[in-house]
Amino acid sequence: MRDPYLHEIRVTWGDCDPARIAYTARIPAWALDAINGFWEHVLDGDGWFQMEIDRGYGSPFVHMRLDFRSPVTPRHRLICAVRPVRLGTKSIEFAVEGSQDGTPCFEGRFVCVFTNSADFTSRPAPDEIRAAVEPYLPV
Amino acid sequence: MRDPYLHEIRVTWGDCDPARIAYTARIPAWALDAINGFWEHVLDGDGWFQMEIDRGYGSPFVHMRLDFRSPVTPRHRLICAVRPVRLGTKSIEFAVEGSQDGTPCFEGRFVCVFTNSADFTSRPAPDEIRAAVEPYLPV
Amino acid sequence: MRDPYLHEIRVTWGDCDPARIAYTARIPAWALDAINGFWEHVLDGDGWFQMEIDRGYGSPFVHMRLDFRSPVTPRHRLICAVRPVRLGTKSIEFAVEGSQDGTPCFEGRFVCVFTNSADFTSRPAPDEIRAAVEPYLPV
Amino acid sequence: MRDPYLHEIRVTWGDCDPARIAYTARIPAWALDAINGFWEHVLDGDGWFQMEIDRGYGSPFVHMRLDFRSPVTPRHRLICAVRPVRLGTKSIEFAVEGSQDGTPCFEGRFVCVFTNSADFTSRPAPDEIRAAVEPYLPV
Repeated sequence: MRDPYLHEIRVTWGDCDPARIAYTARIPAWALDAINGFWEHVLDGDGWFQMEIDRGYGSPFVHMRLDFRSPVTPRHRLICAVRPVRLGTKSIEFAVEGSQDGTPCFEGRFVCVFTNSADFTSRPAPDEIRAAVEPYLPV
Repeated sequence: MRDPYLHEIRVTWGDCDPARIAYTARIPAWALDAINGFWEHVLDGDGWFQMEIDRGYGSPFVHMRLDFRSPVTPRHRLICAVRPVRLGTKSIEFAVEGSQDGTPCFEGRFVCVFTNSADFTSRPAPDEIRAAVEPYLPV
Repeated sequence: MRDPYLHEIRVTWGDCDPARIAYTARIPAWALDAINGFWEHVLDGDGWFQMEIDRGYGSPFVHMRLDFRSPVTPRHRLICAVRPVRLGTKSIEFAVEGSQDGTPCFEGRFVCVFTNSADFTSRPAPDEIRAAVEPYLPV
Repeated sequence: MRDPYLHEIRVTWGDCDPARIAYTARIPAWALDAINGFWEHVLDGDGWFQMEIDRGYGSPFVHMRLDFRSPVTPRHRLICAVRPVRLGTKSIEFAVEGSQDGTPCFEGRFVCVFTNSADFTSRPAPDEIRAAVEPYLPV
C-alpha cells in the first residue's frame, strides 16, 4: 500500500477569522483542494477540470464528514494527507487528515460517485481510475 | 416546538463550477452562514461576531457532516432550514436542510462547543443561549 | 435617470480577518455579487448564469478598480449601490458604492465587455441589455 | 534591483465558473495571496498574520486596480510576479502580474498604508519593512 498523498496548503491572514484561527468553512474547501491534488498526482497532472472536460467523467460528492481536532493557523503549513480508503463499483471514499507541525487538526471522510460528464448520469469507476487508485487502497 | 429558522441564499454564477452547479465547497459555507443567521435571528441581531466580541463567548465547530441529495443551481434561491436538535451542557447540535423550489438539496449536522472568547477555554452554554435555543428543540 | 440598484450583503464573522474587519478580498467579490444582482433586477430575475446559458451571451470583466474608504464590519448590512455609468458599443461600465449605516466604505468602477457564449468572441451589447440599462445611465 | 517575487497558484475546478475559466473574483484574491507571499519571502516567513500579531503593525489596502488580459484556467499554474514599485512615507504600492505558460493573464496595482495593530492608527513604514523592500524598488 502506497503512502498517502501529501498536499500542502499555505494558510494566511485572509483565511482566519477574528478568533485568529482559520474560519471553519475554509477546512472542507482545503480538503477538497487536497483531493483534487491527489487526482493531479495520480492522473498525470489532471484534476477534476481535465477529468470532466478531457476525460469525459466527473466525481461529484455525495457525502462529507469532518471532525475538527485542533485550530488551523498561519503559523505552519497545513499538510493534508489524502488516501482513498474504499473503491466501490460506482463510488470512492477518501480519508483526509490535516496536520500542522505534527499536530492533527482535522480528519474527514468524503464519498464521491462517478458520472458521465455529458449527461451527469451515474457510471462505474473508469478503468484508468481503478488502476490509479488501487495501489493506495488498504489491503 | 418552533418552526426552523429559514435562511435564504442567492446562488450565483460565481458559486458554480464548470458542471453548472454550485461547487461542493460552497455548501458547507452556506450551511454555516445559515447557522450564523439563526443566531442573529434569536439573539437580537447578534451573530458569531457580536457573540465573540460583545458577549464574551464563542461556539467553534467540532464536527460537521453533510449528505448531498441534489445539485444546487442559480435557478432558485437556496432555502436553508436551521434547527438546533440537541443542547448539551457544553455543546449544541444543529440540523440544516437546504432546498430549492421544494427539492431537497442537502442535509447536514453540525456540532459546536462553547468557549470563553478571552482564552478559548471550554465553558457551559450561556444562559441566554439556553433561553434562546430551547423553544426550537424537539420535545 | 433611475436611482441606483441597492444590493444588500450580510457581512459575517467568516468574512472578517483577525483585525475584526472584512478581509479585503471579500470586497471585490461583493461588488460582483451586487452587479449580478443588478442584472437579476433588470432582466426578470436573470443574472450571469441565465445570461450565459439561456440568453447566449456573457459579460466578462476587463477592468476593475476600487478605493477603500472605511472598514466593512458585521455591525451593519453592507449596502452596495450599483449604477451603470457608460454603455459603449461593446462594453459597459458600472459604478458600485458600498456603505454601512450611511458611512461610505468603498467605491469601485468595473468594465465588462460583451461576448457570445458559444465561442467567447466579442459582440455588441444585446438590444435587451441596451433597453434594460439605458434608464439608469447618467443623462 | 532584485527580480520580482514569483508566487505560484494552483488553479482548480472549484475556482472556475460555468464558462470554464477562473471566476473574476478569484483573481484579486490570488493577487492578495501573492502579496502576502512576498511578505513571507522577505520577512523570514512572516506574512500579514505575523506582521499584525507578532510585529505590531498592519498594512491595509486603500486601493486596487486590475486589468484582465486573458482568462485564467486550470491548464497551467498561475505565476504571480510581485514587485513593490513605490515606498512612500506611510504607504507602499505593489505591481502584480499574473501569467500562465508565458501568457499574461492580468496585471494589477495595489496600494497599502501602514497602521499600528493596537489601534488601527496610521504610522510610517517600519524600518524593517524599508530594509526588506528597498532592494526590490525600481531605481
